[in-house]
Amino acid sequence: MTSTRATLSQVAERAGVSLASTSRALHGTGASREMVERVRAAAAELGYSVDAVGRSLRMKKTFQVAFAVADIGNPVYVEMMRAIHEVLAPHGYRVVVMTTGDTTTSTVELVHSLNSGFVDGMVISPLRTDDWLIREIQQAPVPVVVIGRALDDHGISSVSTDSAGGIGQAVGHLRAIGRGRIGFVNGPLDTTPGEARQRGFDAAVRGVGAEVAEDFTVAAGLVAARRLLTRELDAVVAANDLLAIGVIHAARELGLRVPEDVAVTGMDDTEIGRVFYPSLTSVSLGSTERGRAAADLMLRLAEGAEQEAQQVVVGPTLIVRESTVRSGQ
Amino acid sequence: MTSTRATLSQVAERAGVSLASTSRALHGTGASREMVERVRAAAAELGYSVDAVGRSLRMKKTFQVAFAVADIGNPVYVEMMRAIHEVLAPHGYRVVVMTTGDTTTSTVELVHSLNSGFVDGMVISPLRTDDWLIREIQQAPVPVVVIGRALDDHGISSVSTDSAGGIGQAVGHLRAIGRGRIGFVNGPLDTTPGEARQRGFDAAVRGVGAEVAEDFTVAAGLVAARRLLTRELDAVVAANDLLAIGVIHAARELGLRVPEDVAVTGMDDTEIGRVFYPSLTSVSLGSTERGRAAADLMLRLAEGAEQEAQQVVVGPTLIVRESTVRSGQ
Repeated sequence: MTSTRATLSQVAERAGVSLASTSRALHGTGASREMVERVRAAAAELGYSVDAVGRSLRMKKTFQVAFAVADIGNPVYVEMMRAIHEVLAPHGYRVVVMTTGDTTTSTVELVHSLNSGFVDGMVISPLRTDDWLIREIQQAPVPVVVIGRALDDHGISSVSTDSAGGIGQAVGHLRAIGRGRIGFVNGPLDTTPGEARQRGFDAAVRGVGAEVAEDFTVAAGLVAARRLLTRELDAVVAANDLLAIGVIHAARELGLRVPEDVAVTGMDDTEIGRVFYPSLTSVSLGSTERGRAAADLMLRLAEGAEQEAQQVVVGPTLIVRESTVRSGQ
Repeated sequence: MTSTRATLSQVAERAGVSLASTSRALHGTGASREMVERVRAAAAELGYSVDAVGRSLRMKKTFQVAFAVADIGNPVYVEMMRAIHEVLAPHGYRVVVMTTGDTTTSTVELVHSLNSGFVDGMVISPLRTDDWLIREIQQAPVPVVVIGRALDDHGISSVSTDSAGGIGQAVGHLRAIGRGRIGFVNGPLDTTPGEARQRGFDAAVRGVGAEVAEDFTVAAGLVAARRLLTRELDAVVAANDLLAIGVIHAARELGLRVPEDVAVTGMDDTEIGRVFYPSLTSVSLGSTERGRAAADLMLRLAEGAEQEAQQVVVGPTLIVRESTVRSGQ
């Protein structure tokens, strides 16, 4: 008698509410009483399997997924978060955003906190991924998907990108527009992005100099760029958009025009870079695509449709704007 | 035999770890096994009351506090979040950030989800606060502190500001620098900030026009400003920094110089406004102070030190930068 079972979508349609609301109402995770009654009535009419609901309750599903990032103020994470939300919300999951803190210890503590069972899984984008963190992730009681380093050999699902190759694209563009004296402003070298981007720069060009900012922020980029711009150069590759904005501010202090005197590239293709003046030439690392891929992996793991760890790699794309090529207007 | 009890701080000092880690280790909310053993040893040496720990466990404290906002991409919320984190972290609480969604229904559902017991309290900054939401907050099983409308008469702790008065400060500044034809770009009027800021503008000046953007974003501000700038004016008050950036982009499209032809003010004094070019004159509504005040209220409620609802009001402060007064350099 299990044939022609009603689906969740059919219940949602009958109740006249969203899939997410239907799922939450049936699972008792945060719907109003009115909503619960309406959805249960629709489920009863359609003979929607109560078993499925019972199973979820026994599993103590929370229908919450954590997204943990190093710096909630970095717009690249905002775009990832939106993409994760868009994938998970129709399935009834809420996304809760948490900070990993700056250190491996705080990141490990956060992963360890999954034991308290407040979420069904975690998507995490750590700045640094060492053996300690990898061990903690392997032992986590719920699925964890990493956005950052590829972790093929550790049995952990991950979404990575090729930021070294992306820096190569930025350098190639600067050479193509005739810039030959190229400097680099990077973030901390002991981080996953800092290491990869330095490698990419060193492989692409014999630069006229490189400075390491204390952090991947505008303020730190400004300080590092003041040092870098004492050298004679006609272009600066910055390791992300926030650093690039710091570089442009330093150039303005020195009376240098961007892009005429110094062309500047960023990385991450963020909203702040797009609305900045001049708008930033930037290497997109597909933050939306990476967020979406991580959420897809999480969904399959959380719903038990997938057991094996999987790896996804999203490639870089250069987007040319005013900070390297002045528009004709 | 309860005299001269050791405090949590003394345990932390003896264990040589932070207060937050000590608290988490003792409460079993996300410390590594190594950390738990170390802290328990220190607690045992000092005779730290195990009762206190037992009490917390019986209370099923999660040592998590939710911060719920309408748009996680708005930098004003990032600053509040940092302030909340700074107040709560030393007491062992994690902050989890959630989105309210755009509608009252989604906001109500979020407050209702507190019944699942995943946090000890919630700081919420809703775009709209109607009776339905107020009732849901009053019935919440854990403390809720609202950043937004003052809710004195409803027995709800709230942190509010005077954004109408802040718009008045922006208009006063524009007049003081000789601008007489002032337009306004606001966000949706059915929101708490939209309503207050419109009221502030109408009270301060007989403007040459006002346009309502679809949302409090750069993109929506650009569209609204294209309409507004068809009028002859020499200044625009924008209802927040993101809208102000949209206004400046619209002015550039029309070949208008900022601030020479059109002076532009924002509101919220955000990081993006500070690093923008030209940097934004903006009315600070004390996002850091409001976040800190809300977290203080939450802490007192969550720890049972306070039962009564309290109200805090943080005043506005105008900060003058390049978008209204070109610097001498």
